[in-house]
Amino acid sequence: MWEKIWRFPEMCEEALSYSSGMQTFKPSGIVVAGMGGSAISGDILRDWLDPPFPFEVCRGYHLPSWVSQNCLVIAISYSGETEETLSCVREARKYGAKLAGVSSGGTLQEELRDCPFICVPPGLPSRAAFPYLFFSAVRILEEAGVLERREEIREALEVLRSVRERWAEETRKLAERLVERLPFIYTPPRFYSVGLRMKTQLNENSKIPAKVEAFPELCHNEIVGLRGTPPNVTFLLVRDRMEEERIRIRVEFLKRLLEGKEITEIWGEGKGLLARMLSVLYLGDFLSCHLAGLKGVDPTPVEEISELKKELQRHRH
Amino acid sequence: MWEKIWRFPEMCEEALSYSSGMQTFKPSGIVVAGMGGSAISGDILRDWLDPPFPFEVCRGYHLPSWVSQNCLVIAISYSGETEETLSCVREARKYGAKLAGVSSGGTLQEELRDCPFICVPPGLPSRAAFPYLFFSAVRILEEAGVLERREEIREALEVLRSVRERWAEETRKLAERLVERLPFIYTPPRFYSVGLRMKTQLNENSKIPAKVEAFPELCHNEIVGLRGTPPNVTFLLVRDRMEEERIRIRVEFLKRLLEGKEITEIWGEGKGLLARMLSVLYLGDFLSCHLAGLKGVDPTPVEEISELKKELQRHRH
Repeated sequence: MWEKIWRFPEMCEEALSYSSGMQTFKPSGIVVAGMGGSAISGDILRDWLDPPFPFEVCRGYHLPSWVSQNCLVIAISYSGETEETLSCVREARKYGAKLAGVSSGGTLQEELRDCPFICVPPGLPSRAAFPYLFFSAVRILEEAGVLERREEIREALEVLRSVRERWAEETRKLAERLVERLPFIYTPPRFYSVGLRMKTQLNENSKIPAKVEAFPELCHNEIVGLRGTPPNVTFLLVRDRMEEERIRIRVEFLKRLLEGKEITEIWGEGKGLLARMLSVLYLGDFLSCHLAGLKGVDPTPVEEISELKKELQRHRH
Repeated sequence: MWEKIWRFPEMCEEALSYSSGMQTFKPSGIVVAGMGGSAISGDILRDWLDPPFPFEVCRGYHLPSWVSQNCLVIAISYSGETEETLSCVREARKYGAKLAGVSSGGTLQEELRDCPFICVPPGLPSRAAFPYLFFSAVRILEEAGVLERREEIREALEVLRSVRERWAEETRKLAERLVERLPFIYTPPRFYSVGLRMKTQLNENSKIPAKVEAFPELCHNEIVGLRGTPPNVTFLLVRDRMEEERIRIRVEFLKRLLEGKEITEIWGEGKGLLARMLSVLYLGDFLSCHLAGLKGVDPTPVEEISELKKELQRHRH
């Protein structure tokens, strides 16, 4: 897993040259259909772009009812076999939506042979393919003509390359604070997706539970009773140098509230929002891998998910 | 708090007779702007209705960029003073969106004096006003002509009245399983909002942390490493008698995975989706109140939120 995470910036670069064959298309709304490590690309896109049309990530068997002929449904499944995503593809056809897809092959590629499609390199755990999946979705939107931010993307990739050695090193110390601990991840408004990726990487790579909440909503409920949090909880505060003043006041309040508790602040790097988001995400990837090492577990296999897949297969008609 | 929760069905009934003065309006999209106990009405509406137009709940200072003249923005703030929601109202005016609102008075009512508006009874903690806030939003949508489900609503209210005594009693035993425990709440796909309400009620009434995840997404990451969950975690599985077969297989798998852990299954009542959702929500309200009693804390005051509000006030220019 380590070597795959190390190659993150190069995978991004590689994906930026992909083509889906997408033609210009101005959607009235976009839905990214996917699950887990494939869906997260949609969330990151949404937090980053805040586009001038509805943009929803659909994690399940059924598309939202508002999908229509003017909508673009991007189906992302690294394996190409995710049954929820394949179900959404069938629904998208029924609704007459414009379809596009990303996978490393499999049934999804077959199902979408008449649609704009990007086939990414196979053989990775789907969560490690994030750079391929994310930038493939970016490419589809670029080709459709609804995303034009190459400068911001360039800066983000430079930042990823420049932080790599430092993150790989610094996250070792940070991981020590997570051993035998339950992480509560708190993020700025536009970083919820990044926190979610951090949570799922801790689940799958480090084999631990975690939870994520976002400002300012967490100030309306989550903060009550936190003073009495059990000692096995550790707090990861994702920060952003561009955070608004009213958010900063809440973060400082929370830090005082948690005085005496174990808190770690995590800051991204870079100017553009994408660089700030992806650098935190990248840090989380390294962190989850170090924690696996400290716990003596292999970050790659996800035994429980494999077992469940077999179980689901047995119940196929 | 107990007596307010007890009155839940009557509050629903009362709210169903409100009028906002809304005229027929076919929106291209709806955004509910609100925070915490006010926002949750939007999430419940969305999970329940799955409407044929985009429906987003906005928890923060900024509306999504897709809001336009054909959109309806429903601002909900029980106090009428929630600064994030007031900021969204200003943005909605800028975008030329159709505005409507719900509060117990305050600045929101003043700001929306030229708009469809429902003023609900004052003097409650905002989370206890959920029945008023939720059914006020229902009324606005009924008057706009985009919601017509009185039969389902009637059934839901009957169910709430019929479960009340039982829930009030049965949740005492359930609360005992939560003392000194950290609840992980897992929900069916359309019940995430109900799980979120349960989490925030446990935060605010019982003064404990909690987390919520939904099927089938949780099967793609969350389940990894759960066998090794610390002993202070307790699992609340929200079930639904209408759950799809593929979801049921996953729930049964999870139960086997968690063998030996403390699991409680929570089933709602009723035929329609709204009854099934609201009866689980109602159970969660009682549960959070019993847990407060067992812990010897007063469910009503939320000290940390009050402190933060003072802090934010000091930083007003």
